[in-house]
Amino acid sequence: MLTVAGSSKNKGVSPSRQEDFPAWFQAVVREGEVAELAHVRGCMVIRPWGYAIWELMQAELDREIKKSGASNAYFPLFIPLSYFEEEAEHVEGFAKEMAVVTHHRLEEDPSDPGKLKPGGELTEPLIVRPTSETIIGKSFAKWINSYRDLPLMVNQWANVVRWELRPRVLLRTTEFLWQEGHTAFASEEEARENTQEMLEVYRRFAEEFLAIPVLTGEKPEEERFPGALMTLSIEAMMQDGKALQAGTSHYLGQSFAKAAEIDFLDREGERQLVHTASWGVSTRLLGALIMSHSDDIGLRLPPTVAPQQVVVVPIPRGEEGPAVIAEAQALAQEIGELSLGGREVRVMADLRDREPPDKRWEWTRKGVPLILELGPRDLREGVVALRRRDVDARPEPLERSRVAEAIPALLGEIQDAYHRAAAERLAERTRRDIRDADEFREWFDTDPADASAGGFVRGPWSEALESAQLLEELKVTVRCIPFDQDLPEGARCVLTGKPAVTEAVFAKAY
Amino acid sequence: MLTVAGSSKNKGVSPSRQEDFPAWFQAVVREGEVAELAHVRGCMVIRPWGYAIWELMQAELDREIKKSGASNAYFPLFIPLSYFEEEAEHVEGFAKEMAVVTHHRLEEDPSDPGKLKPGGELTEPLIVRPTSETIIGKSFAKWINSYRDLPLMVNQWANVVRWELRPRVLLRTTEFLWQEGHTAFASEEEARENTQEMLEVYRRFAEEFLAIPVLTGEKPEEERFPGALMTLSIEAMMQDGKALQAGTSHYLGQSFAKAAEIDFLDREGERQLVHTASWGVSTRLLGALIMSHSDDIGLRLPPTVAPQQVVVVPIPRGEEGPAVIAEAQALAQEIGELSLGGREVRVMADLRDREPPDKRWEWTRKGVPLILELGPRDLREGVVALRRRDVDARPEPLERSRVAEAIPALLGEIQDAYHRAAAERLAERTRRDIRDADEFREWFDTDPADASAGGFVRGPWSEALESAQLLEELKVTVRCIPFDQDLPEGARCVLTGKPAVTEAVFAKAY
Repeated sequence: MLTVAGSSKNKGVSPSRQEDFPAWFQAVVREGEVAELAHVRGCMVIRPWGYAIWELMQAELDREIKKSGASNAYFPLFIPLSYFEEEAEHVEGFAKEMAVVTHHRLEEDPSDPGKLKPGGELTEPLIVRPTSETIIGKSFAKWINSYRDLPLMVNQWANVVRWELRPRVLLRTTEFLWQEGHTAFASEEEARENTQEMLEVYRRFAEEFLAIPVLTGEKPEEERFPGALMTLSIEAMMQDGKALQAGTSHYLGQSFAKAAEIDFLDREGERQLVHTASWGVSTRLLGALIMSHSDDIGLRLPPTVAPQQVVVVPIPRGEEGPAVIAEAQALAQEIGELSLGGREVRVMADLRDREPPDKRWEWTRKGVPLILELGPRDLREGVVALRRRDVDARPEPLERSRVAEAIPALLGEIQDAYHRAAAERLAERTRRDIRDADEFREWFDTDPADASAGGFVRGPWSEALESAQLLEELKVTVRCIPFDQDLPEGARCVLTGKPAVTEAVFAKAY
Repeated sequence: MLTVAGSSKNKGVSPSRQEDFPAWFQAVVREGEVAELAHVRGCMVIRPWGYAIWELMQAELDREIKKSGASNAYFPLFIPLSYFEEEAEHVEGFAKEMAVVTHHRLEEDPSDPGKLKPGGELTEPLIVRPTSETIIGKSFAKWINSYRDLPLMVNQWANVVRWELRPRVLLRTTEFLWQEGHTAFASEEEARENTQEMLEVYRRFAEEFLAIPVLTGEKPEEERFPGALMTLSIEAMMQDGKALQAGTSHYLGQSFAKAAEIDFLDREGERQLVHTASWGVSTRLLGALIMSHSDDIGLRLPPTVAPQQVVVVPIPRGEEGPAVIAEAQALAQEIGELSLGGREVRVMADLRDREPPDKRWEWTRKGVPLILELGPRDLREGVVALRRRDVDARPEPLERSRVAEAIPALLGEIQDAYHRAAAERLAERTRRDIRDADEFREWFDTDPADASAGGFVRGPWSEALESAQLLEELKVTVRCIPFDQDLPEGARCVLTGKPAVTEAVFAKAY
């Protein structure tokens, strides 16, 4: 299952972040066995190591989603074309790059023996869901009769498809996995509250679980989800200074309710339209995780999302070999009984038929937080050699008797270290002192290959139309109107010099 | 979210099992809010209650799959048409009713304003996966280089699509959810062992978790998965005496390895083809669960798969109302801290704004194993009224002080009761005394609406071709060649009177 094992000489991925950030990202994803584009243009295979990370994310987020009151459900993959015609009437600008199913059979091609061709044309084409608002809305219309049926909150873990002309593994793929929450309420107030509450779930999840610091705020009108009255997002900064939208939550008002006819009898016996919201995160978060924490050696995983938090690598030499292996197993057993955040530490003893240095570099490239190496001499001296993935240092001896005490604390330290480094980068590379368009241009007009140049700008914004042109030219977007507004009185727009109406965060983005 | 609440007069679903078994099944699925066919012909919505059952199944099975050594991964939804042309060469008779994606865009139809039509025709059509052997095989070919990479065992939880001309909710739907395990080994022996081991996982899961007794055995050659050298299955008997194949495990030999070129360097440095296996279960199990245990009132759920194992329904009347509600909450809190099989008991106090009898019948129809009702008088007397879903009896008073002790034991009893009833049915309705074709015909030639007629036949089989005709005429199939063979010497085939070569199980099937 492994690709070619790295020799101990070839320790890191190539190129480095400085040499070529996008190529570095692809190398980390590949060498870390996270995922690969394969088989169909724009589609990906999520490999076991990458999928195990995703499962850890899912489990945590699923708990939080259920705590919010939502229940999981499953809706059809296929959406009739007519549903989109209805949506197209009330929503301008919904994405149209979608996979269209037109036939329900494969037939032998009589004109070309051995070849197959589509047969059984459908009377109405089916669309592979790009998102499920329309289809879930129609189910809601059926299920909701009175105010007693509200609120209705469902969540779906599913695959979705949006045809990508320029796919990038994990970041922009034709098919990806996500969760999409869809909720309906009797009042606008409740629906807006749910929108805010779920963004807060995402924020905590990013910060505390993924160790990714994020900004929270509202999208400007032109960046909203089509049909939404309010789109909130969490925005993270990658190591190249670019923004990555890591989760969104939308208040949809009553337009989807109107299109799908989702109404209810209120307490006074009057028919009312519900207010709906939707919110989601996707396997894109795997990309955010990698671009936030990984280094020139490969993947670095916060312990919360590491499929193995500790790997014990025995170095069995000579006649003490069997004793070394037995001790490695005993060590893994003992560590597996330790608890971190209420759960057992995930640990394995790597007893595969491979050279110890190859094992070490494989787990290092795969981002395992702690590697414990154990040879005959360590055994005699009652120590293990401890390698922390968060620091680039020689291994240190850890006394065997201190292992139980040390491991959970070390894992906690690594989690904190990743978050701290990312938070420092976010602070350092966010300019709050940009005054005008020239300074703005200078900050953003950088060599795309230079991962150390550029970052975010946070400053006053006029929302004036003429600011759009400069943004477009520089390929910069307004990432959000941050919730924690800090707009001095009389402030002038960093782009136009006009009176500012809000503080905004600007950045290039994935 | 509820459909119309049943009045206390209208306690059960309609029709009954005796009146019309297929219609009864649909009514239980609908009234129990498990699932519904909706939106697209043959596709289903799995509603929150049904999906919660599925999630409990998934969690348990996922643990067992991981214990077997397999890791989860995810492969593309779309499979290039050319992959099927390769497969069609080496596999005869693979199903061809599949969803075919031919376009990647929705465009406005210039000839019909407001309408949309497919645009952007693909150069190669894509098939929505009906199963993933071909695509996973091609990834295996890339990942496997040497014997050190073996065994390789992956599992995928995913949606799959097979165009169904006569769809039935949960049993035969165009889209369904499943897990598909795909494994590769250096030797035939290991691959066959894995095939057997996973069938045993499914058997235990069906018996111990779903309370469904099953037969285990091998499929006759003509019932094998196309391309397989051996197909094993678990077969359950529904309440109408029909069989339902509840899980399969295939040894695929080297034919898939040959088609996808999955080879490896063995210890001697020779290139060898791997031996592959695959195994899966699907949301069909929800159908099996319902048709095994449910009754004329509605769903009955074994406690293992009940999203709520206990529901407390307060009956707050008069000035003691608030005290009743407080006690219901306290009771639920206390029960939630109890442990059953190492996990907390799933319990809720139903405080919704509805009439208590409506609540009772809703939870009864949804199959909750235990309902505890609590009114002012119960409060004064220090009891709760206990309703067991497994028996059709008046509620019994349970002393408040005995709740903690009684609940886990009662849940265990209910689990056992469902299994016992299903096992008795399987034994009673399996004929082992059929001697010849006349008796065989008489047993199976029944009114399809009569759920109490027919069942399984277990007896000697000649495997002779002429037996096929009678089977086809009666719509009976060989369900399996059971592992626990009991073939008397000199036994004669129940169908042909010829010398028998094996003992087989015959039944009509879903």
